[in-house]
Amino acid sequence: MPERFHLYDTTLRDGAQQEGIQLSVEDKLRIARILDALGVTFIEGGWPGANPADTEFFARAQTELRLTNARLVAFGATRKAGGTAATDPQVAGLVAAGTEYICLVAKSHDKHVTDALRSTLDENLAMVNDTVTYLTRLGKKVLVDCEHFFDGFRANRSYALDVVRTAAEAGAEVVVLCDTNGGMLPNWMGDVVSAAAGIGVDLGVHCHNDSGCAVANSLAAVDAGVMHVQGTVNGYGERTGNMDLTTLIADLQLKYGWPLLADRQLAELTHTSHAIADIANQPHLTRQPYVGHSAFAHKAGLHASAIKVNEDLYQHTQPELVGNDMRMLISNMSGRASVQIKAAQLGLEITDRELAGQVTDMIKQREADGYSYEAADASFELLVRSMTSQLTEPFELISWRVLTEENTDEGVPRDSSEATVKLVAKGERQLVIGEGNGPVNALGQGIVKALTPAYPQVAGYELVDYRVRILDEVRGTDATVRVLIDTSDGVHGWTTVGVGTNVIEASWEALADAYTYGLVKGYGLVEAESR
Amino acid sequence: MPERFHLYDTTLRDGAQQEGIQLSVEDKLRIARILDALGVTFIEGGWPGANPADTEFFARAQTELRLTNARLVAFGATRKAGGTAATDPQVAGLVAAGTEYICLVAKSHDKHVTDALRSTLDENLAMVNDTVTYLTRLGKKVLVDCEHFFDGFRANRSYALDVVRTAAEAGAEVVVLCDTNGGMLPNWMGDVVSAAAGIGVDLGVHCHNDSGCAVANSLAAVDAGVMHVQGTVNGYGERTGNMDLTTLIADLQLKYGWPLLADRQLAELTHTSHAIADIANQPHLTRQPYVGHSAFAHKAGLHASAIKVNEDLYQHTQPELVGNDMRMLISNMSGRASVQIKAAQLGLEITDRELAGQVTDMIKQREADGYSYEAADASFELLVRSMTSQLTEPFELISWRVLTEENTDEGVPRDSSEATVKLVAKGERQLVIGEGNGPVNALGQGIVKALTPAYPQVAGYELVDYRVRILDEVRGTDATVRVLIDTSDGVHGWTTVGVGTNVIEASWEALADAYTYGLVKGYGLVEAESR
Repeated sequence: MPERFHLYDTTLRDGAQQEGIQLSVEDKLRIARILDALGVTFIEGGWPGANPADTEFFARAQTELRLTNARLVAFGATRKAGGTAATDPQVAGLVAAGTEYICLVAKSHDKHVTDALRSTLDENLAMVNDTVTYLTRLGKKVLVDCEHFFDGFRANRSYALDVVRTAAEAGAEVVVLCDTNGGMLPNWMGDVVSAAAGIGVDLGVHCHNDSGCAVANSLAAVDAGVMHVQGTVNGYGERTGNMDLTTLIADLQLKYGWPLLADRQLAELTHTSHAIADIANQPHLTRQPYVGHSAFAHKAGLHASAIKVNEDLYQHTQPELVGNDMRMLISNMSGRASVQIKAAQLGLEITDRELAGQVTDMIKQREADGYSYEAADASFELLVRSMTSQLTEPFELISWRVLTEENTDEGVPRDSSEATVKLVAKGERQLVIGEGNGPVNALGQGIVKALTPAYPQVAGYELVDYRVRILDEVRGTDATVRVLIDTSDGVHGWTTVGVGTNVIEASWEALADAYTYGLVKGYGLVEAESR
Repeated sequence: MPERFHLYDTTLRDGAQQEGIQLSVEDKLRIARILDALGVTFIEGGWPGANPADTEFFARAQTELRLTNARLVAFGATRKAGGTAATDPQVAGLVAAGTEYICLVAKSHDKHVTDALRSTLDENLAMVNDTVTYLTRLGKKVLVDCEHFFDGFRANRSYALDVVRTAAEAGAEVVVLCDTNGGMLPNWMGDVVSAAAGIGVDLGVHCHNDSGCAVANSLAAVDAGVMHVQGTVNGYGERTGNMDLTTLIADLQLKYGWPLLADRQLAELTHTSHAIADIANQPHLTRQPYVGHSAFAHKAGLHASAIKVNEDLYQHTQPELVGNDMRMLISNMSGRASVQIKAAQLGLEITDRELAGQVTDMIKQREADGYSYEAADASFELLVRSMTSQLTEPFELISWRVLTEENTDEGVPRDSSEATVKLVAKGERQLVIGEGNGPVNALGQGIVKALTPAYPQVAGYELVDYRVRILDEVRGTDATVRVLIDTSDGVHGWTTVGVGTNVIEASWEALADAYTYGLVKGYGLVEAESR
């Protein structure tokens, strides 16, 4: 293992470029805290100035983000061609972000300089030199991403190396060789990295998965002397994604034997992957190495009988090391020792051993049924409270009914929904109708109307986010649906989960949990009383 | 490129082991035809005898599968310890499958022989020798998969090589080195493969993706002399999956420059990936290399302006070569030149150029809205017919209404659904109610009841399969839902698609298309008339 080695996470910047991912500032802050707990070296937070949400993220990070392991990095570009770093507004935005570390992307492929940037090869070198020097003199630590480096090296080897040298001489801490188009193969990496290594600066690598070899390309680069790898959790990113940092960390620590993270941090790898997936509203990739739900799931037949003999005969590593579990697919139950720890974190000590076992079994059963508690802490807390006799239900459902229709009167199809909700709250029976453009909106409206007389504070609870997943274990019209709902009262935010054989059923459960939780915790009460 | 090179597809055998995949015999026959058209060398069809559905598959394949490129392979194991190949029922099952090629899995890791098989190292070698010899004498061509080879080589190098040697001397065509636990890394492959290469038999490799390096491991093995690679389409398989053959084919053909497939076959790679995903009811992996919907999708900002200058600056290869498209994410439209070809295949020539353009634009728009026509040929045909004035609608919807409720009478939550369907068929207005345990069952029942008076043949249409996908482009309660339905009248099978803002809306559309198509094609008419 090299003397110093950097795990550089760009989930919040390059990862967020993935088609379909839209992270709010709140999402980014939550993810940053999870990454910090895992123990990565750097967290690239975004591009302040260029992206207004990122400007806000860095501003809020200064007071709201207390990182204990990682260093926050602001990403941006070298100054504009023909200007000066000192007067460049984009560069100023990087400084204003208030981070000690800044990562600059620079052109290193001659054709990109002349055709895309429409500048000269010399001016590009000046842009690198000027911007790195300027920021270093301000006391910043600067990393430089050499964009399209491998293609650039193939097109004009000496120019690509000139860019690396210029960055190094101007004071860059690390110069990162980027396979921006993702087209490299592992056995091509060594020669290129070795040529750059001759310059003498610390080198990094930044791969994309377009050839299906991002992890392997990064390993090959590490073998050739790179001490800094950039990637994203779950391989999020544009096109085929960035290198999956989740996989690489486990490969380096468990196969190369490099103690990059503390053992207890590595054991959080699976939770990290799943919690970030939930926040980003992405599916959990069941076949993902190490952390996927199926990663250590063994089917009956060839292996099942033998695996009882000796687990190591059938697994390339021990799942517990990364916080995952071995599962025998005859029974779908997974072992989970962290339930007591998680409950304690929520202030719900379970000292009775038998009760702890019952709670654990219930959680296992629920997860086999499709529930995911990785991000749905509020539903988890309600379940634990319920099983440890610490829950008084604020309302009791009698029935709900949702009517969805499509009508082609006047020749134009028109859809609408109505939800009838019947429940008892504070001894009073409520029967109301909610409306919406879809069955779930309508149901949400109905719940609020039904609870408001007894609990006026629910008017302040807002459904902030709604994520639906079909869980494909079963084919046919009874496929399981999972819904995650984020609710907020303006001060607190909480996430709940619901599962059912159809989306309406699943949504009811997540909505009911959301309102139950807010009421049980007394959220919004002060505001309601003062109204 | 070696003189001979094999692309060996085990989607139907190892791939089918994936948690959540259940392929019917019909599914397997469909997939085999698609693989054959792509141009793989071998199609491993399953384990006859061990798996009753596979026995049926091989039986039906003899008359129903006309392969033009690939050879069908029956997979099984060496004879039982202590017996003889000639009297072993499992071996007999392999012979009875009627294929020219047979692939046998053999133990090659000493501990697996002693602990899992509970036999002796010598007996295991005898099992290999006996079974390969027996089958070769019957005129079969035999391939041998050396299970857990890499772990076995690490544990007992000489024994692992003895197994390879024994298989080779008994007449095996190819001896395949299997990384069964998937724990290898690329730079560890070369030494092991080179040692086995010394034996002189043609070598193959079979990797799993547990370290995230299956493709790279296979490439490293190829670099060390392997001429036969085993994998699955889309990397399906147990745990983290088998090596993604889709990615490897493109890497070898486009980056190594090996003409493994005809150009027109390679251009079918994306269709192959998506059609097989639809048949297996798996999500299209948007970030999958080469064939993923996002694989060549470029985001605005850093690249969008530049990419218009020169596509090659931003793409590692040309998407059209693999049948994929570049997409600019400003407008979500993809170019698709194959619409006319597909329509012609369905017997619907579109000779008018302008009309062809309109149809293409409509398909593009629909796909941007979430429709997928890769497997939903019936909906595609209805759309083309509709736009080329070749469709008389057999019924006209007035309205539908679905009521879903949960009732907690008697303390136990009970869910039920009712669907009211109002339509006009053959001039008669029908108003009926269907019932079911969920909204979609109920809707399906309703349609059948409403259509039966005018079209009694619909009683013979059966919903054979139902697949739901949430398309995550949008968060919130308006996420798009896509439904695929397989319908059959016992003679013909057809697939339709529906898209909507909720699953009920999407299901209606797919159901309506399913019944429309059956009626338009005149399916089930003869049977109904004879009743």
